[in-house]
Amino acid sequence: MRIVALAGGIGGARFLRGLKDVVGPDDEITVIGNTGDDIHLFGLKVCPDLDTVMYTLGGGIHEEQGWGRAEESFAVKDELAAYGVGPAWFGLGDKDFATHIVRTQMLGAGYPLSAVTEALCHRWQPGVRLLPMTDDRVETHVRITDGAGTRAVHFQEYWVRLHAALDAEAIIPVGADTAKPAPGVLEAIAAADVILFPPSNPVVSIGSILTVPGIREALAAAPAPVVGLSPIIGGAPVRGMADKVLAAVGVAAAADAVALHYGGRGAGTPGLLDGWLVDEADAAAVPAVEAAGIACRAVPLLMSDPAATAAMARAALALAEQVRR
Amino acid sequence: MRIVALAGGIGGARFLRGLKDVVGPDDEITVIGNTGDDIHLFGLKVCPDLDTVMYTLGGGIHEEQGWGRAEESFAVKDELAAYGVGPAWFGLGDKDFATHIVRTQMLGAGYPLSAVTEALCHRWQPGVRLLPMTDDRVETHVRITDGAGTRAVHFQEYWVRLHAALDAEAIIPVGADTAKPAPGVLEAIAAADVILFPPSNPVVSIGSILTVPGIREALAAAPAPVVGLSPIIGGAPVRGMADKVLAAVGVAAAADAVALHYGGRGAGTPGLLDGWLVDEADAAAVPAVEAAGIACRAVPLLMSDPAATAAMARAALALAEQVRR
Repeated sequence: MRIVALAGGIGGARFLRGLKDVVGPDDEITVIGNTGDDIHLFGLKVCPDLDTVMYTLGGGIHEEQGWGRAEESFAVKDELAAYGVGPAWFGLGDKDFATHIVRTQMLGAGYPLSAVTEALCHRWQPGVRLLPMTDDRVETHVRITDGAGTRAVHFQEYWVRLHAALDAEAIIPVGADTAKPAPGVLEAIAAADVILFPPSNPVVSIGSILTVPGIREALAAAPAPVVGLSPIIGGAPVRGMADKVLAAVGVAAAADAVALHYGGRGAGTPGLLDGWLVDEADAAAVPAVEAAGIACRAVPLLMSDPAATAAMARAALALAEQVRR
Repeated sequence: MRIVALAGGIGGARFLRGLKDVVGPDDEITVIGNTGDDIHLFGLKVCPDLDTVMYTLGGGIHEEQGWGRAEESFAVKDELAAYGVGPAWFGLGDKDFATHIVRTQMLGAGYPLSAVTEALCHRWQPGVRLLPMTDDRVETHVRITDGAGTRAVHFQEYWVRLHAALDAEAIIPVGADTAKPAPGVLEAIAAADVILFPPSNPVVSIGSILTVPGIREALAAAPAPVVGLSPIIGGAPVRGMADKVLAAVGVAAAADAVALHYGGRGAGTPGLLDGWLVDEADAAAVPAVEAAGIACRAVPLLMSDPAATAAMARAALALAEQVRR
């Protein structure tokens, strides 16, 4: 079976680990990773979501933190601060720096990000094929207003430095309009047997992937069933600050609202989903989702341990079979 | 007093520390640093000699090793090796990496190396004005012959990876023919009250600086006395493998031969030196040097401790006064 999953960072990566636990040795997983939160720091190209997937599936992740490397040190960061070179709010560890150094060197030598990601994965052996959504530069910016007026800041500045404490007035995928899907992305979607939306951020993770022209269309046209998992439980994001960026696109922080935002692929609708999983706490949301032509089930959606995560993946695959046309 | 010193790496840096100990608060030291052994590693611009001077005078040097940072860690290097990215023979520590990251980022932003060096020194406060010999890319290559045939390798590969175990057949300053002295270099030489050649490598350190068109001419025309210190004691380099590269330019590893290689500024000669210090062990070399029109003194030249190094600097300045025209 060929499974395609769109993924952001921590939530997506953890779900993928559960998915790997439940698929068979002949199943193939292709991950289309968000690169909208990529950022250039200290002259280096940093791809937080791709790395979180790679480290998580490759066994190098800082488990408690969810991002970055385990057993990390911070000598480079401290030295950069001693030089007065910032930003200080983005905490790159020494091991992590090496990844960005290799990536930047390869990009500088002319390799596209997809080839660089493949090279990095040659070490990590994540057990999935990890594709960036695009080889082109796309950067999610967030429009905010504070005492200094209204302006757009890089998503990482909004998320990491400002802790999403200000309202996100708009989400601006800079460069997305001219970006092309990375090699293999459209082909993987077209050839998939199952397509999954892990419980990643619907706006700045999966939403970012959908801004690349051609990807949304390929998903809508794919013969495979498309099943998503709600990142919202009981009206709040499981982790992160997804509610802040959902508000920017006029979507309530609710399990059903997110499904309706993606939309159903039922007859006559231009949406993406055939199926949607909500947490048991949101069972009341099922009818509204199904009314939109999306098959919906309420199951436990907290990735509290590997077994719970694997059960979520199993439920998603089961729903995919139920909605297969 | 305005003192100009040409400097390579470890020997030059240690001498400069002694020089700083003996000059007065109103004296100004300008160091023209060798950049011929600069190398691009992992996409980063590494300037070993400039950094050795900066770290040594700024209090950050690994004292026993003579280069690199004190209390260094190697997480980045280990990670690069785990990615299979080399070379492994050039051991950059984590703290050192930060310097190269800052430098590379500034160069990428369009700043010339001289401005970058000034910015880095803003942190280190070396107490001297440190100028790269040029803002242009100059790389010393070494021609060697081994089982694979005759080829040219980067100086660092010859020095660090091959430990200068093969004969250096030629020293090739790639890019030097079109390089220009960095801003301030010629002006500092013209305005100097004393010009010193520390006991740095005469071929790949000071010799490299002299390959930049205009610097040799400026030294020859400078009104200030030019005094050098022999890096050769008793027929062998005090440290390093200077004899290997001296052979490549047809110069014996001897205190007098190096002086004659630089040449005397006496009437009718096109050389650079007014004065030359040899070690007491080489007192027999004095007549040959003086016969070339170079005032020569035999004094202790081992930089065994700060006091010995300061005495060397004092002897060099004293000789400069004796030969001042």
